[in-house]
Amino acid sequence: MKIRIALSLAALGLVSVIASAQEALHLRPDVFSPQINDDLTVTFRLNAPKAQEVLLEGDFPGGNSQQMHKDASGVWTLTTAEPLPGELYSYAFRVDSLRITDPANVYTMRDISTLFSLLLIEEGGSKDYAIGDVPHGSLTKTWYHSDSEGVDRRLTVYTPAGYEQSGDLRYPVLYLLHGMGGDENAWAELGRASQILDNMIARGEVEPMIVVMPNGNIDLQSAPGESKDGMYVPTTKLPRTMDGHFEAAFPEIVSHVDRTYRTKTDKASRAIAGLSMGGMHSMVISREYPEMFDYVGLFSAAVRPIYATRHEVYRDDEKKLRKQFENAPKLYWIAIGEDDFLYGENVAFREALDKAGYPYEYFESAGGHQWRNWRAYLRLFLPRLFR
Amino acid sequence: MKIRIALSLAALGLVSVIASAQEALHLRPDVFSPQINDDLTVTFRLNAPKAQEVLLEGDFPGGNSQQMHKDASGVWTLTTAEPLPGELYSYAFRVDSLRITDPANVYTMRDISTLFSLLLIEEGGSKDYAIGDVPHGSLTKTWYHSDSEGVDRRLTVYTPAGYEQSGDLRYPVLYLLHGMGGDENAWAELGRASQILDNMIARGEVEPMIVVMPNGNIDLQSAPGESKDGMYVPTTKLPRTMDGHFEAAFPEIVSHVDRTYRTKTDKASRAIAGLSMGGMHSMVISREYPEMFDYVGLFSAAVRPIYATRHEVYRDDEKKLRKQFENAPKLYWIAIGEDDFLYGENVAFREALDKAGYPYEYFESAGGHQWRNWRAYLRLFLPRLFR
Repeated sequence: MKIRIALSLAALGLVSVIASAQEALHLRPDVFSPQINDDLTVTFRLNAPKAQEVLLEGDFPGGNSQQMHKDASGVWTLTTAEPLPGELYSYAFRVDSLRITDPANVYTMRDISTLFSLLLIEEGGSKDYAIGDVPHGSLTKTWYHSDSEGVDRRLTVYTPAGYEQSGDLRYPVLYLLHGMGGDENAWAELGRASQILDNMIARGEVEPMIVVMPNGNIDLQSAPGESKDGMYVPTTKLPRTMDGHFEAAFPEIVSHVDRTYRTKTDKASRAIAGLSMGGMHSMVISREYPEMFDYVGLFSAAVRPIYATRHEVYRDDEKKLRKQFENAPKLYWIAIGEDDFLYGENVAFREALDKAGYPYEYFESAGGHQWRNWRAYLRLFLPRLFR
Repeated sequence: MKIRIALSLAALGLVSVIASAQEALHLRPDVFSPQINDDLTVTFRLNAPKAQEVLLEGDFPGGNSQQMHKDASGVWTLTTAEPLPGELYSYAFRVDSLRITDPANVYTMRDISTLFSLLLIEEGGSKDYAIGDVPHGSLTKTWYHSDSEGVDRRLTVYTPAGYEQSGDLRYPVLYLLHGMGGDENAWAELGRASQILDNMIARGEVEPMIVVMPNGNIDLQSAPGESKDGMYVPTTKLPRTMDGHFEAAFPEIVSHVDRTYRTKTDKASRAIAGLSMGGMHSMVISREYPEMFDYVGLFSAAVRPIYATRHEVYRDDEKKLRKQFENAPKLYWIAIGEDDFLYGENVAFREALDKAGYPYEYFESAGGHQWRNWRAYLRLFLPRLFR
């Protein structure tokens, strides 16, 4: 105990980590990528001296299979021709036809069975996708018991900053549903829901609320790799997403949430919204339980009626919708992009609503069936809730 | 509203996703990898027809830079010569010297600034690293305010299954600390802490407990990419890990946890443990606040004394340790691998404890400074707590 030796970084593990072939850690990527330049152009780099061809595939303007160029040291580089508009982008490299994420970028996201590298340009509305210097809510991965399915199923729950310190204060609840191929992580990860809520609540534009993100694939307990089914390839599971059972059993989730969190339980304090299949779920659930939600958001929703023979929640849709609108929801909000493949059926749905005289609000954006739209719709929808 | 059209998968988004060049989703990887065979050998595959050489780099027996072989279709394959022992392994491919994760495997983990593909062989103790068919606790990413640093900082908190339904029941708390280069996500991700706790609690081997995983880098609010510093390269941040401030301010965390969760607040209901640097933190914190913890776990800990001039928490270490042991902790548990680069200083530390007559328990494993040891130590440490 008498020995006094300076404790260097080495003594605490960094050097051992470098030296351990078994762990094979690279402490610093060999190139810097992506580099967001001052003018908001972006430079991508990949160190692959032996590659014959490297393409950049990104979902930003001009990012569609761009040839990268190799310098004398074997580093492939591409700088975008134009500054990138503010957005959360995804990209990959294609190296001699092999698709890879950017080895220099640890920030990735999974969409179904594909990983993408991430790039966030903070400009305009997309600043809300960044983690702000604001009070942060908590994000919980938790489980509820589904009596109807006889299993535990997972929920992602956002509670706003101050929830833990606010004593008996009760909060309104938004149920936020993912699309096909998604899961209870989708809105928190691809949708940046926590960041959007933290930032907009901090500015006073959005009421502090609880946001509950269930798994809409009733055959799955939870996201791929996070269930007893182990680390399977995500596409191999059939999730029974459209057999009506998820929608029919939705009160189980509401009931669990009301027992577990300090919620307001009146209709005026409940909202439901979803994208694509989750929009369909939101439409069906809110009309099946017309006393439950005063706010409904259909983002690029699949609104074409389903064969009524499938499940009773799909039957008598007109009658149920009439009842829902007799109960006068405070907001029935429909949003879709002009290039969305579901645009046509949304036109038909709105015509039917118009014909029946049911009030709704409509927002049409550019673009198609994309997360950038759904994030933007969330930013538009949230300030309308609970005020 | 009269139109009845079968809602196909296509109508709900899958086809649009395939068709969208912008989103560039691959719904199914072009090869199956990794494939765990019935005999627990593993087959790795990579579809890279134009590559000249592909190596497999895995941290399993025989996984060190193994040459893969290309078949006529351009798929590189390797099957391990031997069944793999139960373990959570990480691996990568090296394609003509370019290191990549396995494109067919969406399960990855980040260690500092490197991503690895994951492979879990469920056999023996490593079954506890899988998500069992058992009740699951909740895992929350939440924030506390650090008065000492003047910022909000993040915690990962595990609450055991039943916590939300157990009324006024109070729980003991384990504070579980990461090593250098880690963060508040490390134990939950690389350490599989949730899975281990869920499984061992379900078997009745471990008391239901709250586990709090703070960020031990006092200069960082939270893990890379999850703070206002944005998506930086993890190694570019200097985390001020050894200036004493994290240890000195630790009661802030305990106090926040006791205010926020239904904790038992007596010494017999508090444990602290950590790996490497986190073991050093656990040693320093538990002797600085000798009334706080009855259980101390030093996993591959950096136990060599630090220059006392750095911070007062490093001063008078012998005196403080004497006070700690006068308070008779129920368990002072030291574990290390025989190949660990910190082995020598652990020998010296134990000799000092022996000389002073301070009781401790010691566990020595094979191997070195590795997560496989820290997961194993956690499985050994947990059943000793709070009983």
